[in-house]
Amino acid sequence: MASFIFRRRLTIEWGQCDPAGIVFNSRFFEMFDTSSWLMFEAALGVKPQDLAGTFGIIGIALVDARANFLKPVRFGDEIEIASRVSEFRRSSFDVEHKITLGGTLAVDGGESRVWTARSKHDPHKIGAMPIPPEVIAKFG
Amino acid sequence: MASFIFRRRLTIEWGQCDPAGIVFNSRFFEMFDTSSWLMFEAALGVKPQDLAGTFGIIGIALVDARANFLKPVRFGDEIEIASRVSEFRRSSFDVEHKITLGGTLAVDGGESRVWTARSKHDPHKIGAMPIPPEVIAKFG
Amino acid sequence: MASFIFRRRLTIEWGQCDPAGIVFNSRFFEMFDTSSWLMFEAALGVKPQDLAGTFGIIGIALVDARANFLKPVRFGDEIEIASRVSEFRRSSFDVEHKITLGGTLAVDGGESRVWTARSKHDPHKIGAMPIPPEVIAKFG
Amino acid sequence: MASFIFRRRLTIEWGQCDPAGIVFNSRFFEMFDTSSWLMFEAALGVKPQDLAGTFGIIGIALVDARANFLKPVRFGDEIEIASRVSEFRRSSFDVEHKITLGGTLAVDGGESRVWTARSKHDPHKIGAMPIPPEVIAKFG
Repeated sequence: MASFIFRRRLTIEWGQCDPAGIVFNSRFFEMFDTSSWLMFEAALGVKPQDLAGTFGIIGIALVDARANFLKPVRFGDEIEIASRVSEFRRSSFDVEHKITLGGTLAVDGGESRVWTARSKHDPHKIGAMPIPPEVIAKFG
Repeated sequence: MASFIFRRRLTIEWGQCDPAGIVFNSRFFEMFDTSSWLMFEAALGVKPQDLAGTFGIIGIALVDARANFLKPVRFGDEIEIASRVSEFRRSSFDVEHKITLGGTLAVDGGESRVWTARSKHDPHKIGAMPIPPEVIAKFG
Repeated sequence: MASFIFRRRLTIEWGQCDPAGIVFNSRFFEMFDTSSWLMFEAALGVKPQDLAGTFGIIGIALVDARANFLKPVRFGDEIEIASRVSEFRRSSFDVEHKITLGGTLAVDGGESRVWTARSKHDPHKIGAMPIPPEVIAKFG
Repeated sequence: MASFIFRRRLTIEWGQCDPAGIVFNSRFFEMFDTSSWLMFEAALGVKPQDLAGTFGIIGIALVDARANFLKPVRFGDEIEIASRVSEFRRSSFDVEHKITLGGTLAVDGGESRVWTARSKHDPHKIGAMPIPPEVIAKFG
């Protein structure tokens, strides 16, 4: 497991909550996506909008997302999201996102992503490419 | 005012509502945007994803949006959105979106949009282009 | 597995798509949530906003959500979402949501939900309650 | 015009942008709403989730929202939102939200809100209530 952990704090907004007064589930997946981008920026020193250009890829395509909702999170709650790459494979990787509220795990989430590029031989072909070792190294 | 009116019905979803149990304001602007695309499809017979290609434009860029919230709309409410172009100008137009609930006006909204294309002389330049008369004619 | 399948068709909206031109992942979780509500309405004949009141519960709380993104879905694409309860347990159940595009599976999703009510002995306590057999029966 | 100005900085997220690569309009209205809550917190020293309880109201109901989009805002752009009450009336007020990008005005927005409470004589009645002078005073 990569040792690099990216943490950020958020305060829950009114528009992120549903009639039960708690965060609507899709909003957590928005947070996960943004945390993944910001984690790459923090680890690699490359701004999200420059990530594709810097590495000659199209993006870090999301192929799987999941979340276990353990504790309700409400309007005004201050949460922390801690994200880390739990596994790098040849051309894909898993990210775990742990949202805590007052030190207690509230949402246990995860994503699987693919290092995606155009084929050098056939630019019409898009697919998984090997993740550069120097990228993996930056995550410790 | 164009006589063509595009109507659609929607049932309010749980995730569109806030802790007060009513539709969160930004959701109405999503509905307006979609109704504008669908109104063009209904008037012109061109699918939204083909609109730019068919007319050699980049899109119908939104430059102004507004809404007056007159009556709360809640989870499960069945609303109707009636949209029409209230004015065509040389290269821009106004759309009015009226959302009714049980026959009563609940949200009175509007958008201003620009017929946007790349300059033929300088493809780096993007700007307002005259709306083709045949497009305007289709709106009656 | 319950034999009742709830199907609905959707056309992808502009505002549901990201800069890569494909549906942003959180939007699929919005669709899943709405399909679950509508599936209950279709199976039980109870409107979503009346579900809690009819069965003396607070709701069908989401405790887990997941999706596997197999094929990109784009602006204007017409998709079908087929939802069914894959397992009823004493007080919780799993829903599977399969999104197809042109007959091909594009998103393979799922949710786990809990039949949630206030305790009769202590109204401050909220928790899982047994799902009524007549509810389960309606799903065949 | 109230002299109190609330400013915050945001970096545009991937999921806030549409296939044209720019912020989808509804996202700006989410930002306005959150800025209004945070402006009240900054001016009054009351957390958003405590605002209703502290002043015996139901909320600061949004009755009108509008935005003029002057300049595209893209993924990764760092924006500033400056919000202030442009006018307090007896029981309602206007908020202006100015979003700048690199010092240039990109979105010129506004909201009208109502100080909303239950009637003391008839708790079933909800309506506009006079804004307390001490609230107005805090905005200078």
